[in-house]
Amino acid sequence: MSTEILFGINTAEEILNAGRRRVVRLLISRDEKGARVNALSGLARSKGVPVEFCSSNVLEKLSKGGHHQGVIIEAEPPKKLTLDDALHLIRDPKKTIWTALDGITDPMNLGAIIRSAACFGVTTVVLPERRSAGLTPTAQKAASGALERVNVVEVVNLNQTILKLKEKGFWIYGLDMGGKPMPQVEFTLPAFIIIGSEGEGLHQKTREHCDEMVSIPQKGGVQSLNASNAAAVTFYELSKKIN
Amino acid sequence: MSTEILFGINTAEEILNAGRRRVVRLLISRDEKGARVNALSGLARSKGVPVEFCSSNVLEKLSKGGHHQGVIIEAEPPKKLTLDDALHLIRDPKKTIWTALDGITDPMNLGAIIRSAACFGVTTVVLPERRSAGLTPTAQKAASGALERVNVVEVVNLNQTILKLKEKGFWIYGLDMGGKPMPQVEFTLPAFIIIGSEGEGLHQKTREHCDEMVSIPQKGGVQSLNASNAAAVTFYELSKKIN
Repeated sequence: MSTEILFGINTAEEILNAGRRRVVRLLISRDEKGARVNALSGLARSKGVPVEFCSSNVLEKLSKGGHHQGVIIEAEPPKKLTLDDALHLIRDPKKTIWTALDGITDPMNLGAIIRSAACFGVTTVVLPERRSAGLTPTAQKAASGALERVNVVEVVNLNQTILKLKEKGFWIYGLDMGGKPMPQVEFTLPAFIIIGSEGEGLHQKTREHCDEMVSIPQKGGVQSLNASNAAAVTFYELSKKIN
Repeated sequence: MSTEILFGINTAEEILNAGRRRVVRLLISRDEKGARVNALSGLARSKGVPVEFCSSNVLEKLSKGGHHQGVIIEAEPPKKLTLDDALHLIRDPKKTIWTALDGITDPMNLGAIIRSAACFGVTTVVLPERRSAGLTPTAQKAASGALERVNVVEVVNLNQTILKLKEKGFWIYGLDMGGKPMPQVEFTLPAFIIIGSEGEGLHQKTREHCDEMVSIPQKGGVQSLNASNAAAVTFYELSKKIN
């Protein structure tokens, strides 16, 4: 089993609680003495995961200077699903929101968007293989454990995926500056919302496949929200349909 | 005049266009040959700002490894206003949204939140002096030029500021997990929305000063949105009142 070195308290907590991945060990800095870290080591033990206490230097080295908060977890990489698998996992289509992140190449942004997805009940995140940052430890840290709560599907061709989801009854929305202002949009579920990169927006071909283009009303001046904030606002607005 | 080394195309564009700060010079990498960089050097010249072309190494050094995009601008630091000055600048109270960021100590988050504020028509950002990251070049890069579009007020005591704004007719809202779900809140303007740090939320005293606590409905599991995304969603919801 290949493993990864992941860091941060939230990440470790979520991985242990979710139990989706095999965990090799939990490392805790000897200098770390909070109630949360204590609870974390108890949680690990209850799951049969070995806990090791070590110096902060070891954590520094293993996390390569990442913001580890005194906690490292060594686990197998996050599991990805096939598109078919993710479709089988749908329980209530009328409460189903999926997203695709097309061209989010910054791992911090990718992680933050996955975190927002989980917060707002977006169950599946589709990543076009060649146009996305990988789920690196940095991305996972920014996701703050959210990778345990959403399904990640890697696809080769986003447009093919859209066609398949249309067949399954999904409504396809594209986030784009020229689209209909979001507060006026009547979203229909199941929904698949496609979010492009900050500078470029969506590809022409992808745009043509969308049932509706939507936009976030913004004041003139500053060019646009950053991708992570735009995604959060979009998921928030969609989540009103399932609350 | 003390000056700062700032970087990034958006930042340089906005500083030149806004004309709020004195600019010493614009540095452009010789390797940079896009239409946008050409337009930028034309813009600088039209404003009487000297343009220098140099090697990327110089930009690397000056930006200390920051993501400079081939562009550096040397300018005076962003101007801060006093609370009274900012109050004098209000034109239409019924379209006025202000925010306070209390405990946002990460410069990237601070910058991203200021960017969102500008996007959604939040005109003034109040920063408690001792509980906020500074407007460092990193924060300004994350703000992507938005500092030229919002007023920044540094205050010593946030609670005093709240009392003063109440006198001026502001409604005070606090963002907090236990608050009323945002989609059900009837925001009244002028509004002052206080956003706390991710982990801690708002201080008890600050909470007591609020007219209403509001929350962003979220699904169980992941603890919460990151501060920047929570701010974006909040400003988005408030901005519906002024669109």
